[in-house]
Amino acid sequence: MIPHNHWLRSLWNLLMLFVILLFLFIISYRQVFSLFTPDAVYWLFVSFFIADIILNFFTTIKRGHIRIETPLEVRRFYVRTSFFVDFLAALPIEAILFWMWGPLGTQGPIASVLYLIVLSVTLVKLLKAGSIFKYLQESLGIMPAARRLLLFAYWLVVAIHIIALGWVWIGAGETGRPYFDQYIRALYWATTTIATIGYGDYTPDHNSTVQIVYTIIIELFGVGMFSYVIANVSSLVANLDVAKSAYRRHLDEVNAFLHAQRIPSHLQERVRDYYSYLWEQQRGVSTMQVLQEFPRSLSQEILLYLNRDVLERVELFRGADELFIREAMQLLKSEVFLPGEYIIRQGEYGDCMYFLTSGTVQVVVNDKEVARLGPGSPFGETALVEQGRRNASVISLDYSTGYRLAKSDFEGLRQKYSEFDAHIKKVVAGRKKK
Amino acid sequence: MIPHNHWLRSLWNLLMLFVILLFLFIISYRQVFSLFTPDAVYWLFVSFFIADIILNFFTTIKRGHIRIETPLEVRRFYVRTSFFVDFLAALPIEAILFWMWGPLGTQGPIASVLYLIVLSVTLVKLLKAGSIFKYLQESLGIMPAARRLLLFAYWLVVAIHIIALGWVWIGAGETGRPYFDQYIRALYWATTTIATIGYGDYTPDHNSTVQIVYTIIIELFGVGMFSYVIANVSSLVANLDVAKSAYRRHLDEVNAFLHAQRIPSHLQERVRDYYSYLWEQQRGVSTMQVLQEFPRSLSQEILLYLNRDVLERVELFRGADELFIREAMQLLKSEVFLPGEYIIRQGEYGDCMYFLTSGTVQVVVNDKEVARLGPGSPFGETALVEQGRRNASVISLDYSTGYRLAKSDFEGLRQKYSEFDAHIKKVVAGRKKK
Amino acid sequence: MIPHNHWLRSLWNLLMLFVILLFLFIISYRQVFSLFTPDAVYWLFVSFFIADIILNFFTTIKRGHIRIETPLEVRRFYVRTSFFVDFLAALPIEAILFWMWGPLGTQGPIASVLYLIVLSVTLVKLLKAGSIFKYLQESLGIMPAARRLLLFAYWLVVAIHIIALGWVWIGAGETGRPYFDQYIRALYWATTTIATIGYGDYTPDHNSTVQIVYTIIIELFGVGMFSYVIANVSSLVANLDVAKSAYRRHLDEVNAFLHAQRIPSHLQERVRDYYSYLWEQQRGVSTMQVLQEFPRSLSQEILLYLNRDVLERVELFRGADELFIREAMQLLKSEVFLPGEYIIRQGEYGDCMYFLTSGTVQVVVNDKEVARLGPGSPFGETALVEQGRRNASVISLDYSTGYRLAKSDFEGLRQKYSEFDAHIKKVVAGRKKK
Amino acid sequence: MIPHNHWLRSLWNLLMLFVILLFLFIISYRQVFSLFTPDAVYWLFVSFFIADIILNFFTTIKRGHIRIETPLEVRRFYVRTSFFVDFLAALPIEAILFWMWGPLGTQGPIASVLYLIVLSVTLVKLLKAGSIFKYLQESLGIMPAARRLLLFAYWLVVAIHIIALGWVWIGAGETGRPYFDQYIRALYWATTTIATIGYGDYTPDHNSTVQIVYTIIIELFGVGMFSYVIANVSSLVANLDVAKSAYRRHLDEVNAFLHAQRIPSHLQERVRDYYSYLWEQQRGVSTMQVLQEFPRSLSQEILLYLNRDVLERVELFRGADELFIREAMQLLKSEVFLPGEYIIRQGEYGDCMYFLTSGTVQVVVNDKEVARLGPGSPFGETALVEQGRRNASVISLDYSTGYRLAKSDFEGLRQKYSEFDAHIKKVVAGRKKK
Repeated sequence: MIPHNHWLRSLWNLLMLFVILLFLFIISYRQVFSLFTPDAVYWLFVSFFIADIILNFFTTIKRGHIRIETPLEVRRFYVRTSFFVDFLAALPIEAILFWMWGPLGTQGPIASVLYLIVLSVTLVKLLKAGSIFKYLQESLGIMPAARRLLLFAYWLVVAIHIIALGWVWIGAGETGRPYFDQYIRALYWATTTIATIGYGDYTPDHNSTVQIVYTIIIELFGVGMFSYVIANVSSLVANLDVAKSAYRRHLDEVNAFLHAQRIPSHLQERVRDYYSYLWEQQRGVSTMQVLQEFPRSLSQEILLYLNRDVLERVELFRGADELFIREAMQLLKSEVFLPGEYIIRQGEYGDCMYFLTSGTVQVVVNDKEVARLGPGSPFGETALVEQGRRNASVISLDYSTGYRLAKSDFEGLRQKYSEFDAHIKKVVAGRKKK
Repeated sequence: MIPHNHWLRSLWNLLMLFVILLFLFIISYRQVFSLFTPDAVYWLFVSFFIADIILNFFTTIKRGHIRIETPLEVRRFYVRTSFFVDFLAALPIEAILFWMWGPLGTQGPIASVLYLIVLSVTLVKLLKAGSIFKYLQESLGIMPAARRLLLFAYWLVVAIHIIALGWVWIGAGETGRPYFDQYIRALYWATTTIATIGYGDYTPDHNSTVQIVYTIIIELFGVGMFSYVIANVSSLVANLDVAKSAYRRHLDEVNAFLHAQRIPSHLQERVRDYYSYLWEQQRGVSTMQVLQEFPRSLSQEILLYLNRDVLERVELFRGADELFIREAMQLLKSEVFLPGEYIIRQGEYGDCMYFLTSGTVQVVVNDKEVARLGPGSPFGETALVEQGRRNASVISLDYSTGYRLAKSDFEGLRQKYSEFDAHIKKVVAGRKKK
Repeated sequence: MIPHNHWLRSLWNLLMLFVILLFLFIISYRQVFSLFTPDAVYWLFVSFFIADIILNFFTTIKRGHIRIETPLEVRRFYVRTSFFVDFLAALPIEAILFWMWGPLGTQGPIASVLYLIVLSVTLVKLLKAGSIFKYLQESLGIMPAARRLLLFAYWLVVAIHIIALGWVWIGAGETGRPYFDQYIRALYWATTTIATIGYGDYTPDHNSTVQIVYTIIIELFGVGMFSYVIANVSSLVANLDVAKSAYRRHLDEVNAFLHAQRIPSHLQERVRDYYSYLWEQQRGVSTMQVLQEFPRSLSQEILLYLNRDVLERVELFRGADELFIREAMQLLKSEVFLPGEYIIRQGEYGDCMYFLTSGTVQVVVNDKEVARLGPGSPFGETALVEQGRRNASVISLDYSTGYRLAKSDFEGLRQKYSEFDAHIKKVVAGRKKK
Repeated sequence: MIPHNHWLRSLWNLLMLFVILLFLFIISYRQVFSLFTPDAVYWLFVSFFIADIILNFFTTIKRGHIRIETPLEVRRFYVRTSFFVDFLAALPIEAILFWMWGPLGTQGPIASVLYLIVLSVTLVKLLKAGSIFKYLQESLGIMPAARRLLLFAYWLVVAIHIIALGWVWIGAGETGRPYFDQYIRALYWATTTIATIGYGDYTPDHNSTVQIVYTIIIELFGVGMFSYVIANVSSLVANLDVAKSAYRRHLDEVNAFLHAQRIPSHLQERVRDYYSYLWEQQRGVSTMQVLQEFPRSLSQEILLYLNRDVLERVELFRGADELFIREAMQLLKSEVFLPGEYIIRQGEYGDCMYFLTSGTVQVVVNDKEVARLGPGSPFGETALVEQGRRNASVISLDYSTGYRLAKSDFEGLRQKYSEFDAHIKKVVAGRKKK
């Protein structure tokens, strides 16, 4: 079996997208201008569609959270789901119709319309294109917004093409010119109309009710479709970076507050610097908030990954029991400290301890620096163990981040995990000696 | 009395919608082209409206949460509410005017305008159409979005028709052509104008101030209306599936988080698979959240329905007291377990028990599988009863869902309901023997 | 002093709005077509503006929460705030310019532009119109949405008028026609352009760079303005009833849930009926939620008003101490009961009592009805006093609403207010006798 | 080093913005009309770009929260970041191409296109403009919305200019006129097209496929861009004052509630007055809510600033320990009192004390005024200390604001800070004497 996310498979899908677009353009163009015969090019297209079906029988499937990998199951699943669309797309309807009724346009008006209706089955290929887009997004990891932008462009191009061919087919446009020029001018009319520009240099023939009715229909649906696409593309562009735009909106509110309360500009600058730092660290998404809605095992897994550095640096965690680490991880609260901020003030009552994860802090006793701690250091645990006031201040030297462990959670962990208790006792004893 | 949601009654309403549309089109068309006489077709229309009034007197009524079913009350309610509109709609105003003043357009300008004003009473039929739409939605269970889409289409078609007839009536358009061709070309002008295309092939006669003023008015109101319809249809299409689009927006945020924190791709995939599973289970609406705002009796009713399988499978609930079931149902919290997830870890402190509702789990003691449990099985209750550490691990084999019962709620139920207490003791005793 | 919300004052303001609009139209029209002389009509307009200033000196003022009522303060406040705008609006700039430089258009091009710039001071009258709109909204109690709609219409009409006059003034349009016809055709050009229709029957003269540049400017700003107005009007129309549209959106979500979970249709109908009832009662705004953000004294005031019926009907509250009523009011939680719902079930543990505010309930002991209670009745207090199980069921017969008083709050009130304690004991004793 | 926010530096940046715009306009205009030679004006432009690079080497840098001030680091950072763009912008590509291949348009079609592609490197100057905009916003403190508006205007003007030049270059437009007239008419065509007006007086030559294809492309992208700009500008204008529009939306909801519940108009007015007062005080942003998400040290700093008056007026805080002030500040809750509101009622149970921050209150015992308190006064502490009922009422005379300190927090502070305890005892003792 071919793995569903093999790069060759993705390449083939990209190729199929291109083949579908090309097929729709070339064959419909030929049909409208009565140039179509089931020639080599046509059969080449058809063979592509058949090859795709065959390949699908040998490719593993992933739909949402479901994976299908054994040949038998793949076949069963494929036949039950998208096989029908693929089969319809691979049917050489154009050739069959050509052999039965001759080229399009040589029939009477009613037969002609019937011919067109049967032909329109070929549009099922667009459904195929839609599902390939979805597949490519999943396997190539394109952002969904980008996929939707591409899809809109795809539909729009196909729609304008079909509207233009319709214009040619009802005899509008400049019939005296060569075929390709007629097509380009019909495209021009279609674009000018659905973009509501309406220069008026090409308009329906006032003596042809068919052309007028066709124009009315295109005006209503085409304009609707175009506005819809423009509105969607605008909102997609505006939200390309969801996180960034939410962050910006929030910053606007904070700015409004700072202006309204006439906070002095040096404080305003500190606030803005803080948000800039936060953005750089979190890209506007609060880790804790997102993790809350993941199932427990998944959020633990992600926390372990995010804190892999801390786990290695903090002596306490190195080689500790996995159960302990998993439980402790979920009790820690991330915090940001500003340059010069007092994380702990000497004399305060202590109700938490910290683990530094980035930056440097200064330990100060009676206004004299006694130590500097780097990433991985725990601090503030003495007061917790001895239930008293803080015996030293800890000041952040730069922007730094740390985890906060509340007193109650700390007590809970010591009670449950004897190794943790022992370790804490050792650390406190060690500090005292100094 | 005819039940208000009888399918024949719905059919009649659909027919009435069609009759109203047809009436507005045919009669106004005839009036403008001075073809109107109160002929058989006209009286057929009128008799439809009268038949509808008679039927309404014999149909039960449902407005919001109010039901009216006795003949007397129906009559009283109908006469007090929509009867007046129905009566105005059934009045043969066109015939009366025709007998009094002759066909439209044979009067002087002022009489003509007066004639038109009286005629416009017939537009009350649109109000009737609006209330039929509302009725159809309620009785056929159409999604409100679909109803609004249809309504917008209905208004738009009627508005374009009226704008086109107005254009003909003030003498604009190609007066030399047959009536129907004039009408089609007026429609063409109306569409081209309100869709802001403005080819310029049909414009008001520069020597006719009336036509110019008419065009100005249509430009302002018509364009406003068209933009409004397009904007609404766009947002309706975008939100056709409210739940899906909210889900997608949320997934975008989660993806942004995964990208920003550079979570490795195998973890990313597990997160996405989880959301895909969640979507399939819940369709993006958290049951618990919705139920919270329902009144208690209704949310209990719905919980009983949703958990009808669990209630049958879980031994504990089968044949239990209804009061117990209702109370227990509201204490359970739904949870999802991923393939391979440790629901319970041996050695942990236990603070809850579970009921499996779908999927399979493995019970593992000291890394050896000792049992497999399927939907309906309770597990994790031993540690709760004995207040100790978990004596086995429970691992989910596939995606599975279960209910979680917290320790405190568990104790509360055992205290209140002695049968539950007895059952739990029996289960624990049974496990120990094994 | 004239009270600021006297109806004659409001009428005068409406008149002023009309006078401003008329002035802008008539005088600018005359200026552009060189018809302006400071005639009687002109001085009548000016005297209106002067009269308004004089009236303002004798009218009390209300701005936000500030009221100014003594003559001296009114004069001081008025002179410091809107007097300057009113003074500029009353200045006969047109007459002064006419006496100094003759009619507009008889100067050289530079003097002409200077003339125009000085004239544009008259647009300050629009500011005056804006503040009159605001005043009218506050004193007439028009919904803000309606005011904004009117304001948009006002601006749009004035803007189109000015654009059209500009078009005439630069020599575009059909110069051969009578003045009014020229004006109408300029309006037609302006509307056709800013609504982006662009028929192309009137375009700038290709040999006049001034006309082309004027058109470019109008295209950019006019189209921007028109789109802005349309977008705002659309959103205003869509949100005319803020509460209703929020309610509808919420109902859509509930419907999506019901569909997704395939709730049987009779339960679905009950849910929808419930929301319909809720809407009728609350009009989509939860009283409790709104009151939370009011200051305490205001929310108490409003609760006393909303519950004036209950306070009269419930024996307990009649003639009770005001402090008790105010405190109790804020502890009650509003609840809705469905037809057939068990508010209390015999045998349940009771943790609250109720006061019925509307509808009827049935008291049932061992499946036998023992009493019916109407609005104003308290029930469920026995179990609270005796700390046991409910000794009767209470079933709602129709949709009914009641207040819920939780056990803890109940105990708190009994402890604080001895009269309440006495009353409760009496009621319980009375019931036992029966 | 030049400080990055020196006013001369800002002026230079403004000048550079103007230079870039001018360069893009003049040089591209000359290129298209084959008027370009590397003359003095051209080299003046180039020297501006070079001067800017040199200046950047001597200016300190601030990016988000990062400050770079030492010459070496500035150079390293600049070379690694925006130097490349600045270098490309300063390259005299136009001159090099002119010397190599002669003026644009004298080559064959393929060489011409190649020429254009190389020339388009000059558009990198737009990137430079973008980063100058960002810099100006940060150093001049422009609101982000205003910056985005200006940026949109900038892009739009440049885009229309380029579209117009493209139109001239492919030979469309009125080739017989002088160069500048051709350019103006091309601008006119570009604006008329992308604003979707499409008069149709200038259209592509129907015999020129190049012009038709160019028009199709402009129609699709130009219209998309224009709609995007209009939509964004509309939403920017609507949200220029984020806080105000959120406040207005909220007020609409409150009004809807008042209407729906038919609150009597004197109560409605009080509610509206309250919101008007609140708006004036807070400008729609709740201080407490914003501060919650700031890091502790920053929120304390801002609270100290905001309450600098209170800290001076309240006897208790004057000269108190900083640790105490910081801790107390975060326990206080801001409250608003309406005119006539009972802040404290005699006989109530007291569970908090207050500090008045603005306005005047009346202390009333048994309906007799005994004192008036102004900003800075604490009140309500007696009942807290003595655990009894309030022995006086306190009534707000006007709108006033105060801080509320809850009983539990009060006890906590007294326990921790002995000075506070002593002070409170003194105050209570002092009151008793009176």
